Amino acid sequence: MAFGLVAQQLVRLGILSTSDHASVVSINLFVALLCGCIVIGHLLEESRWINESITALVIGVCTGVVILLTTKGKSSHIFVFSEDLFFIYLLPPIIFNAGFQVKKKQFFRNFMTIMLFGAVGTLISFFIISLGAIALFRKMDIGSLDIGDFLAIGAIFSATDSVCTLQVLNQDETPLLYSLVFGEGVVNDATSVVLFNAIQNFDLVHIDAIIILKFVGNFGYLFLSSTLLGAFGGLLSAYIIKKLYIGRHSTDREVALMILMAYLSYMLAELLNLSGILTVFFCGIVMSHYTWHNVTESSRVTTKHAFATLSFIAEIFLFLYVGMDALDIEKWRFVSDSPGKSLRVSSILLGLVLVGRAAFVFPLSFLSNLTKKSTDERIIFKQQVTIWWAGLMRGAVSIALAYNQFTRSGHTQLRGNAFLITSTITVVLFSTVVFGLMTKPLIRFLLPHSAKHLSSMSSEPSTPKSLLSPFLENEQGSEVEVGGEFASRPSSLRMLLSKPTHTVHDYWRKFDNAFMRPVFGGRGFVPFFPGSPTEQSAHNWQ
Amino acid sequence: MAFGLVAQQLVRLGILSTSDHASVVSINLFVALLCGCIVIGHLLEESRWINESITALVIGVCTGVVILLTTKGKSSHIFVFSEDLFFIYLLPPIIFNAGFQVKKKQFFRNFMTIMLFGAVGTLISFFIISLGAIALFRKMDIGSLDIGDFLAIGAIFSATDSVCTLQVLNQDETPLLYSLVFGEGVVNDATSVVLFNAIQNFDLVHIDAIIILKFVGNFGYLFLSSTLLGAFGGLLSAYIIKKLYIGRHSTDREVALMILMAYLSYMLAELLNLSGILTVFFCGIVMSHYTWHNVTESSRVTTKHAFATLSFIAEIFLFLYVGMDALDIEKWRFVSDSPGKSLRVSSILLGLVLVGRAAFVFPLSFLSNLTKKSTDERIIFKQQVTIWWAGLMRGAVSIALAYNQFTRSGHTQLRGNAFLITSTITVVLFSTVVFGLMTKPLIRFLLPHSAKHLSSMSSEPSTPKSLLSPFLENEQGSEVEVGGEFASRPSSLRMLLSKPTHTVHDYWRKFDNAFMRPVFGGRGFVPFFPGSPTEQSAHNWQ
Repeated sequence: MAFGLVAQQLVRLGILSTSDHASVVSINLFVALLCGCIVIGHLLEESRWINESITALVIGVCTGVVILLTTKGKSSHIFVFSEDLFFIYLLPPIIFNAGFQVKKKQFFRNFMTIMLFGAVGTLISFFIISLGAIALFRKMDIGSLDIGDFLAIGAIFSATDSVCTLQVLNQDETPLLYSLVFGEGVVNDATSVVLFNAIQNFDLVHIDAIIILKFVGNFGYLFLSSTLLGAFGGLLSAYIIKKLYIGRHSTDREVALMILMAYLSYMLAELLNLSGILTVFFCGIVMSHYTWHNVTESSRVTTKHAFATLSFIAEIFLFLYVGMDALDIEKWRFVSDSPGKSLRVSSILLGLVLVGRAAFVFPLSFLSNLTKKSTDERIIFKQQVTIWWAGLMRGAVSIALAYNQFTRSGHTQLRGNAFLITSTITVVLFSTVVFGLMTKPLIRFLLPHSAKHLSSMSSEPSTPKSLLSPFLENEQGSEVEVGGEFASRPSSLRMLLSKPTHTVHDYWRKFDNAFMRPVFGGRGFVPFFPGSPTEQSAHNWQ
Repeated sequence: MAFGLVAQQLVRLGILSTSDHASVVSINLFVALLCGCIVIGHLLEESRWINESITALVIGVCTGVVILLTTKGKSSHIFVFSEDLFFIYLLPPIIFNAGFQVKKKQFFRNFMTIMLFGAVGTLISFFIISLGAIALFRKMDIGSLDIGDFLAIGAIFSATDSVCTLQVLNQDETPLLYSLVFGEGVVNDATSVVLFNAIQNFDLVHIDAIIILKFVGNFGYLFLSSTLLGAFGGLLSAYIIKKLYIGRHSTDREVALMILMAYLSYMLAELLNLSGILTVFFCGIVMSHYTWHNVTESSRVTTKHAFATLSFIAEIFLFLYVGMDALDIEKWRFVSDSPGKSLRVSSILLGLVLVGRAAFVFPLSFLSNLTKKSTDERIIFKQQVTIWWAGLMRGAVSIALAYNQFTRSGHTQLRGNAFLITSTITVVLFSTVVFGLMTKPLIRFLLPHSAKHLSSMSSEPSTPKSLLSPFLENEQGSEVEVGGEFASRPSSLRMLLSKPTHTVHDYWRKFDNAFMRPVFGGRGFVPFFPGSPTEQSAHNWQ
C-alpha cells in the first residue's frame, strides 16, 4: 500500500508511457495466472488429491519452462524473488488471517503444548539440522561456508509450511490435532524468523556462555514484547470502534480501520525490531475477540471473508512466485557442472528435516502426555505421526530466508551459496509436491474419519438457502463455536464434559467478562445507541 | 499486488535489514495518518461541514509543515508523488467501485445526457482553457511553453473531482441530478486522460484537417474499445463463476476471482493502450449486473463492502498524498522569487476553470432539455448551477497528469514547468478546500430538500437491529432498487409513472432477459444446484 520513498523507484509504467511495456505484460501475465490457478484449483479439487498450493506451484514451474523456451534459455524470471515483497506485503495478510480465524478456545486450551512444539520443538530441529549440516557438508567440496551460514541453514529448514495438512484435516472431527498443527505452524514461523534474525545480528564466531544467555534472553524478549504489541493494537482498534461507534455512519470506515490498524501493528513491530509475525497474529486474535463484535453485521461478514480472501490471494501468489522462480537459470549455472553433488546436498537436507522433526515431535508428545490426566487430551501415536508429517513441507518462508542469507538481489556469485539456494528450491518443490500429494492418502490411512471430503481451510461453504447462517454464527460468537458444534454429536459432547474445566482459560474468562469486555466490547457487550442507523435513516425519510 | 520487474528495485526493508529504517518509518507514519484521517473525519462529520477528503488534505498539509520544520526546511516529502502508483494502484479501485455501486437504471436512463456532459462538455472545457491559456500566458514571462504544453494544460484542468458534491447530494431525493453529476465525473476522468494521452502521442506542431480527423477517430475508437473490453471482462467473470458455481466450495475464491478479473481488465486495457478507467468502470457495471448475482450471499455482502472500503482507503490515501506533497520545497524554489506572478497564474487558471465549465453546462443543459418531453426529466436552472459547481473542484487526476507533463520523477528544472506545477497544486488545494467547504451551504440554499443529513456516499448505514436488511436489498437486486425506494414515497412514484417507458433501456431489458441472463446469470437466473453447500456439508456430518 504505502510505498514511501520507494514510489519514485517504481518502474514508470501505466497509461502514460509505453517504454515499460514489459512490466505491464508481466503484471497482466501474473494476474491472469492467478485467475488460472483459482479456476484450475477449483476444478482439480473435485479429484480430492490436489490443492491450490500444488496447482500454483506446478503452474508456476510450467510458466517458467514456457518463458525459458520463449526467451531461448536466457531467462525464466519475469520476476525476481524479493524478500521485501514477501515480508511486507504477502506474509502479513496470511498470518493476520490465521490469527483472525483461529478457534480461540481450542488454541488457548492447548497453548502450552503448542508453544512446546512451536518454540522448543523448532529450536531442537534447528540444532539438529545445523549440527547435521556442519558434520556432513564440511567433508563435501561445496565452497566456503562459515558458522553463521550453517546456523542459518538450521533456521531456514526449521520453518515449516503446514497449509497442505491443514487443508486435509477436519477442524471439527479432530479439534485437538487441528489446533496443534495450526498453532505450531504459526509459532514455528515466528520462531524461525526470530531465530534467523538473531543469528544475523549476533557475533557467532566467538560463542561463549554469555552470548548464549544473551541470545536466549533476546529471544524471550522478542516473543513477549511482540505479543504484547499485537494485543495492544487489537485492543486499541476495539476501543476506538466501540467509543466512536463508527458503524453508525459507515461500514467501510470500520473495515478500513481494522485493516489499517492490523497493518500498522505489523509495521510498528518491524520498526521496533520485534517479530511482526507474532504481533500481527495476536492482533488478529484480539481483533476477532473484541473488535469484531463491536462492528455492524455487514462489517462482520465483510471482514471475515475479505481477510480470508486477501490471505488466499497472497498464498497463491506466493506459490506461483516460488514455482516460477525455481527455474531461474542464473541460480542453476554454478551447480550445473556437478548435478550429482547438488542432488546429494538436497537429499541430505531433506533427511535432516525428517530426522530433526522426528527428534522433537515424539519426545515432546511424550512429555505433553505426561501432564494430561484424561485420555482424550493425550496425543496418540497416530496423531504424533500426523503432526510429524504435517511439518515436513517447506515453503515460502524458507525460500525468503534462504535468499536473504545467500543472495544479493536474488543472485549469487559464490559456489557454496549457489548450492544452498538450489538445494532450498529443490527441497521446497519436492516436499510441497511429493509430500503434499501423499498427505491426503496418509491421513486417510492414519485417521480414517478425519479426512475432509471437501478441503476448504479458510472458508466455509454457504448456500443461497441458508439466508441467516452467517449471522447466527456471528451471534453465537467464535468463543462458543466449538461447543456449539459438539452439541450435535454425542461422542464429542462426552469429550467436552469429561474435560476438567478449572483451567487458566477459565480464570481468564472471568477476568475478561469482569474487566476487559466492558471496556473493549466483545460478544454481548456492545451497548445499544439511541442514535443508531435505523432511527437516523428513518428520520431521513420523513 | 504484482510488482513484476519492480520487485528487485523495491527498497530493501522488512525484518531482515535495518539499513532502510527510514522507509519503515515512512510506512508507519503514513498508515498512522490514514487511521487518523478516518477517525478525525468521523468526528468532524458530526459537524456536517467537512468530509474525509478535506480532512485528509488538511492533515497532509499539516504533516508536511511538521516534516518541513523537523528537517529544518530541507524537505517536506517523505513521499514523492508517482503517477504510476496513482494510475496502477490507487485509481483502479476507485473507478471500479464507482461502476460497481452505480445505480444502473438511472445511469443508463440518462446515458445520452451524461455522455453529452462528460465527453462533449469536457472537450469544450478543454478548448476554452487551452485557448485562454495561450492568449493569457504568452504575454506573461513564465518561461518557454510550446503548443503541446498549452493543450496539456487544457486537459489537466478539464479533469474534475466531484466527490465533494456527491457526498452532499442525496441519491434518493434527486436521482436525476445525482446520476448526472456522478456519471459526468467518471466519463470526464476518462475523457481527460484519453485526451491527455492523445496530446502526448500526436504531433501537434503541424495541425491540419487530417490530423484533427485522426485525433477524433482515435478518441472514438478508444472510447468504444475500452467499453467493450470492460464489458467482456465482466461477462467472462460472470460466465466462469456461473459455470463452475465456485461458491459451492469457497466464498474466498469467488471474491478473489472478481477482484483479480477486474484488475486484469484494467491492466489489459493499459497493455492494449486503451483507457483503463473506462474499461474498469464498465467492468464494474457488468459485474454488479451479472456476476454479483451468481455468487453466495456472503460473497455479495463481502464484495459490496470490500470494494467500497478499498475505494475509500485509496481516496483518503490520495488526498493525504496530495496534501503532503504540496509543500515540497523543490517545486516552490523556482517561483519563490516571483510570488505575485505565481498567484496570477493560479488565479487565471481558476478563472478559466470557472468560465470553461460554465461555457458547456448551461448550453448543453439547454440542448438536453429540448429533447425531453416531460418536465420532470428537464434540468432546471438551480440544478444546472449545481452541476456547474460540482465540477469546479480539481483533484488527484489533475495532479497526476500535471506531474507527468511537467516533471521528471516529481521535479523540474524549467521555470515554466515549475510555474505550472505550483499553480496546479494551488488550484487543487484552493478548489478542494474552499469550494469544498462552500458546497454544502450552497446546495442547501439551491436545493433545500436535497442535502443529506448524513453524508455517506459509498456506504449505507446499518444497525444491529436490521438483521436481514442487507440481504433483502440483495434479493431485490440493484435493478429495482430505485423503483423499490420510490414505492414508499408518493411524489416519486408519480414521477416514475409519468415517464415514458418505451426507451432504449426497455429494449435492452428484453434482450437481457431473453439472451444475456440465461447465459451469464444475474438476478433470478442462477439455477439451483443439487450439489449445493448445505447438502454437501450435511453429507460431511454423516
